[in-house]
Amino acid sequence: MATRHEKLLGEMRTSGLDALALVPGANLLYLLGLTIHTSERLAVAFCGLDGSVRVVLPALERPRAEAEARFPAQFYDWSDAEGYEVGLRQCMEDAGLRGRLGVEYTAMRVLELRAIEAADEEVEVVDATSVLARLRMVKDAGELQAMREAVGVVEEALGLTIAAIKPGVTELEIAATWERAMQAAGSQASFTTIVASGPNSANPHHTAGSRRIERGDLVILDGGARVGGYCSDITRTVAVGELGEEGRRIYDLVLRANRAGVAALAPGRTGVEIDQAARSVIEQGGYGQQFVHRTGHGLGIEIHEPPYLHSAEHDPLPEGSTFTVEPGIYLPGVGGVRIEDNVVLTAAGGDVLTSFPRELQILPG
Amino acid sequence: MATRHEKLLGEMRTSGLDALALVPGANLLYLLGLTIHTSERLAVAFCGLDGSVRVVLPALERPRAEAEARFPAQFYDWSDAEGYEVGLRQCMEDAGLRGRLGVEYTAMRVLELRAIEAADEEVEVVDATSVLARLRMVKDAGELQAMREAVGVVEEALGLTIAAIKPGVTELEIAATWERAMQAAGSQASFTTIVASGPNSANPHHTAGSRRIERGDLVILDGGARVGGYCSDITRTVAVGELGEEGRRIYDLVLRANRAGVAALAPGRTGVEIDQAARSVIEQGGYGQQFVHRTGHGLGIEIHEPPYLHSAEHDPLPEGSTFTVEPGIYLPGVGGVRIEDNVVLTAAGGDVLTSFPRELQILPG
Repeated sequence: MATRHEKLLGEMRTSGLDALALVPGANLLYLLGLTIHTSERLAVAFCGLDGSVRVVLPALERPRAEAEARFPAQFYDWSDAEGYEVGLRQCMEDAGLRGRLGVEYTAMRVLELRAIEAADEEVEVVDATSVLARLRMVKDAGELQAMREAVGVVEEALGLTIAAIKPGVTELEIAATWERAMQAAGSQASFTTIVASGPNSANPHHTAGSRRIERGDLVILDGGARVGGYCSDITRTVAVGELGEEGRRIYDLVLRANRAGVAALAPGRTGVEIDQAARSVIEQGGYGQQFVHRTGHGLGIEIHEPPYLHSAEHDPLPEGSTFTVEPGIYLPGVGGVRIEDNVVLTAAGGDVLTSFPRELQILPG
Repeated sequence: MATRHEKLLGEMRTSGLDALALVPGANLLYLLGLTIHTSERLAVAFCGLDGSVRVVLPALERPRAEAEARFPAQFYDWSDAEGYEVGLRQCMEDAGLRGRLGVEYTAMRVLELRAIEAADEEVEVVDATSVLARLRMVKDAGELQAMREAVGVVEEALGLTIAAIKPGVTELEIAATWERAMQAAGSQASFTTIVASGPNSANPHHTAGSRRIERGDLVILDGGARVGGYCSDITRTVAVGELGEEGRRIYDLVLRANRAGVAALAPGRTGVEIDQAARSVIEQGGYGQQFVHRTGHGLGIEIHEPPYLHSAEHDPLPEGSTFTVEPGIYLPGVGGVRIEDNVVLTAAGGDVLTSFPRELQILPG
């Protein structure tokens, strides 16, 4: 079986890249197993078409990087006193860089780009985002197992959390309950836990605050766990005490939109098609303007990664890719509903990793 | 009193910047109060010399940004379907951008830089890092109060944590104890808590793992709290059961280096001078090669921000700046010691915010 590094070289050839520059983060971890610390200090790994790996990094980072490297690599460390310029220039010279150098447009900073441009004016810097996305989108069995475990952790903790929701409890207390339960399971939150209650639930970017739960609230609970470096990300919405007619109507629409999105999954389908399958349910229900975000995002090492499910994604979703399906409706002053599941696309359609009940739950209150 | 925005305009004029582009993060929060979400989606705020503020951002982010903005601003939102290009071009045209545009070299990504360059080839992009650092380094009374509170939270929690250290407990359990105590105080960890025990303490970048504490271990505890958006960051090292002669020798050296660094603080002193004051103690003790990192880093909204205390920092440290003083010695196979305090530079010298005891503590074990 080809290693990730070998697959990378194949993708680089296909895409006409002569070399690739990776900064600390998810791609460097995925492809080379390196966990170099992201900081104000420059660190860049260069991958050549000949399979060579050369890493410029702060001296402090070198021992760990050498211990982690599962491949022959050359390291060019630099100290605060000397700066990175000499080491970077030497590295790029040794690498014989020329032609098209792929970089991560949404990860590399101006600092690294300008340093590379200054070290060699001849290098043509191009966007490698889609090359890297193609590699990382398709999960192997080990990755899927980690994601299933991360789903198991967040769902078990969610059950305990919902049981503790009642009038008078604050959003932050509910979020802490959820996070503690994930920690107790040996995991941690994969992102800042969202608990949005009452009017706050109408703001899809609310996180959690000091507001106390009241009878009649809708409460959006959006959280995830991380297991073995892989994320889960689930949302459920509950009502407290009672729920009015419009609340019931939007809950029903969002649930049907969620199911329609998942049902539309099949090999060859695109992000825009899945987005449209979910969105049309809500549009036909008269709330299209209140579904203010995309239907889903890829999920894996990062909590947001390719593929994306929105109206400008026309590439077929690859088999083995993992993502969220999470339609929502947000009514300012009233409240909101979002129902989010995690899915892996298989030859048979969408295999839903999350299994926490989706039906409307009205808690005592 | 000049607002932060007014001070920014003054610094821009002094530095010959015609405009400034800010991406989501600490500077945007500090200067304009905006907490736009960092994501794969482009968001940039442009500040003109005329005081104008124009923000290109995903449509989903606009309502919160409008609610947060404490100043007149124009918003250019974009949807997934249309992309950001049209809005960005319109924004830059309305701003009448020309000449030198300052950007954040360690925050802006290639994505935003290339988009700006594509929208207007005439703009000259320059590094605004030092301009922004000058503004943020000097803390006002409210910022210092938040930092003092963050120190209080982490120190109280550290006391509880050390009391729970004994042979058989894992590093992760110790870290969880510390983090839970900070959460119980209404705070949260300002960075990933470090608990490095025994041989792991010789690696300054170890975080926390499944290793169990053993009699004879040195244990480095490095953590921080966040209060009102501001960080604390303290390190103490304890011994368990017993400590050999070399352990005692390096503990004593690191403690004296810490005190020498703090004692050297005075208006007009530079980062290199403070670094040298601490480092020379360790060098004279024969462990200069084992003090593998800088003496300190600035602290505030970010856990690492200017000023830095190392051998290439020749600018005088400004009064009101806040930073860590944290010498360390790391002996592979044996263990390490680090003692870190938080300091604000005043006219009278270093005002040490942290007060947790620094003397060697040998825990029962």
